[in-house]
Amino acid sequence: MERVLGRDFKRFIGKEILFKGWLAQIRKLGGITFLLLRDRTGEIQGVLEKRSLFLPPKESCVEVVGVVKQERQAPGGIELVIKEIKTISEAKELPFEIGRERYLNVKLDTLLDYRPLVLRNPKVGTIFRVEAEIVKNFREFLTKKDFLEVFTSKIISQATEGGSALFKIQYFEQEAYLTQSPQFYKQMLVGAGYERVFEVGFVYRAEEHDTSRHLNEYLSLDLEMGFISDEGEVMDLEEELLRYIISRLNERQDYLKVFGISEISFPKGIPRITFEEAKEILSGDKGCDLTFEEERNLARYVKERYDSDFVFVTKFPYFLRPFYTMPDEKRPYCRSFDLLYRGVEVTTGSQRIHEAKVLRDNLVAFGLRPEDFGFYLMIFDYGMPPHGGLAIGLERLTVGLLGLRNIREASLFPRDRKRLIP
Amino acid sequence: MERVLGRDFKRFIGKEILFKGWLAQIRKLGGITFLLLRDRTGEIQGVLEKRSLFLPPKESCVEVVGVVKQERQAPGGIELVIKEIKTISEAKELPFEIGRERYLNVKLDTLLDYRPLVLRNPKVGTIFRVEAEIVKNFREFLTKKDFLEVFTSKIISQATEGGSALFKIQYFEQEAYLTQSPQFYKQMLVGAGYERVFEVGFVYRAEEHDTSRHLNEYLSLDLEMGFISDEGEVMDLEEELLRYIISRLNERQDYLKVFGISEISFPKGIPRITFEEAKEILSGDKGCDLTFEEERNLARYVKERYDSDFVFVTKFPYFLRPFYTMPDEKRPYCRSFDLLYRGVEVTTGSQRIHEAKVLRDNLVAFGLRPEDFGFYLMIFDYGMPPHGGLAIGLERLTVGLLGLRNIREASLFPRDRKRLIP
Repeated sequence: MERVLGRDFKRFIGKEILFKGWLAQIRKLGGITFLLLRDRTGEIQGVLEKRSLFLPPKESCVEVVGVVKQERQAPGGIELVIKEIKTISEAKELPFEIGRERYLNVKLDTLLDYRPLVLRNPKVGTIFRVEAEIVKNFREFLTKKDFLEVFTSKIISQATEGGSALFKIQYFEQEAYLTQSPQFYKQMLVGAGYERVFEVGFVYRAEEHDTSRHLNEYLSLDLEMGFISDEGEVMDLEEELLRYIISRLNERQDYLKVFGISEISFPKGIPRITFEEAKEILSGDKGCDLTFEEERNLARYVKERYDSDFVFVTKFPYFLRPFYTMPDEKRPYCRSFDLLYRGVEVTTGSQRIHEAKVLRDNLVAFGLRPEDFGFYLMIFDYGMPPHGGLAIGLERLTVGLLGLRNIREASLFPRDRKRLIP
Repeated sequence: MERVLGRDFKRFIGKEILFKGWLAQIRKLGGITFLLLRDRTGEIQGVLEKRSLFLPPKESCVEVVGVVKQERQAPGGIELVIKEIKTISEAKELPFEIGRERYLNVKLDTLLDYRPLVLRNPKVGTIFRVEAEIVKNFREFLTKKDFLEVFTSKIISQATEGGSALFKIQYFEQEAYLTQSPQFYKQMLVGAGYERVFEVGFVYRAEEHDTSRHLNEYLSLDLEMGFISDEGEVMDLEEELLRYIISRLNERQDYLKVFGISEISFPKGIPRITFEEAKEILSGDKGCDLTFEEERNLARYVKERYDSDFVFVTKFPYFLRPFYTMPDEKRPYCRSFDLLYRGVEVTTGSQRIHEAKVLRDNLVAFGLRPEDFGFYLMIFDYGMPPHGGLAIGLERLTVGLLGLRNIREASLFPRDRKRLIP
């Protein structure tokens, strides 16, 4: 007999079928035994035909033969009347109930230690289906706009964002580092004639942060585009991109309902507030970066005033941004922006410097040595268009979209200050 | 004036337009100056209206105003009659001619040192358009088959494929390694209830090889599937997958013609030869792995006999394969296979052991300590279906498909025994 997936049961009413999956729950109710069966397509109710059937422990892998029946009281209106049940792989006694809630009654560290088991919880498991959907639509949108997907090395000999927060690798006789961002490569590939590139890949920050919104390895959704007039074009593109991603997510009601979300809202336009204006609104210190608290307060202000969960903060002071950022006409600002979502920074982007001389001078001004950046600077000497780009942190975006509590929940196998396992 | 891309010129015949891109070539022919212009969509012929127009050096970034004209003698039947040309970013004198051939008259090391510049050569640049297309279709095919895309950590505390060839990372106070493969994670995610997962990501091998077919960082196209009956199902899937990828590539005549390829051939069925049979055909030593030379000779044999560029070598001896490989009924073999393409191994796959006890025993038999693999073994105690999977090396596949000479040509920024730059 061929295996039938749970989602296809409705086409087999009255027929005997073979199901394969996991035995998620066993419930006895007034002399009847109900089972919850799970496969990759979801959950199905089963009911035992005979009381005498042997049942393996919960979460065992099973093969079940039964007859599909319409049953108004069953979830989805369908249940499987079970004639035989065979154990493929027996489960030991569970360390905790997997259940159906997102926040299992266990602390986060235990959840992460038992990650593969915890992923069988529908709420936890759906987080990563949502992430796959976000990434798919990120690529789909950009591919339609002529962006080329690229894959650039994660082992580098030189820091991109400043030298402090790098993981060191022993690369044969040489010292190397894990990349903090594909920044240099994206720019080089714009100059290589591709003009528009994107990359989905891990980046690494050896930062000592141990907070609910920092990971030491995270998935960066990067893009870079040539022949722009200013960073406003990059923001326009991101706005359109996020509108697309969120509208596609809103079509996935099967995912959203797991989180009790009916629709993810997106504003008509994302408000754009300069750094200077933001600091004025917040009565903050213009000489310092936005604090986490200021980000949250600005988000609250924008939500009340513009009914938007998103806000672009534009024209950051140049001394808060990397050396490759294009300076603004108005000093001491530059053409760099952040996108905040529900009070958390999910994107940093900017127009970049494309003139070789300005870039070399800026390296020196930032206390760096142009000779260390020769491989990056080369293409700027052979015809480099004006360009800009951005990076979206996938896990942070997901935390915002689904209302998660801790960024570790949005990483399959998170790496933080202490955690290297699983 | 809005920018018009080269590929859209045909919709602007007789009209004045603005072009942005690179000045690829300047040719004087009988008093007329022809230009070759390049943007992300390809190349366009330009012709100077006036002799007196100032021209920047080749490969400069330019804005051009001109009138689109039908011209039978021009490539593509269209040329731009140029009225104005403005330099956006001037190129220095080129270190070598970029030209239009794949094998520029420069040695590979120089080509890689100048990678972004060399990518402007249409043949070199198209290699990575082809790779993006392969990856896109890999994902598309698997997504249609219910595979979930996953992203798993590249920083691990434990070797997957044996302990020798790992790059060491200093992870705060701990020692960690760059992953050799997402093997453990793929399996754990099958057991997590996703059943079918795939990942596209870099993997790392600290091997001292310095050959035309080894990279120390390469892109692995990984998949893993649950509820299989044997490794034959995994091979069936790969055959269907590759047929799909190649048939989609064959639709990209714009890419293939750059390499002088009219069609990439794919056999009706990929021949499957056991390791034992292969060694008999080759009169080789059954106690040793296939040598590179044997792989080439087997490929020649299969090409002559079955007219196939692909061949599966199945049922490898278990002592040549990792501890997690399912043993075969027939000793000393196991359910592991390689796929050779044009004489080069492009895939290794197998059915895996899914019984916790067998897996623990096998770790011991391989001289490993089960207690070091606790994070991996955990899920096998809680209901693990029979499963198997494979990994395709993207760069090797691309080398075979396009007939490249060296695997470094198929990596944007290759990392080999010596190279960390660019």
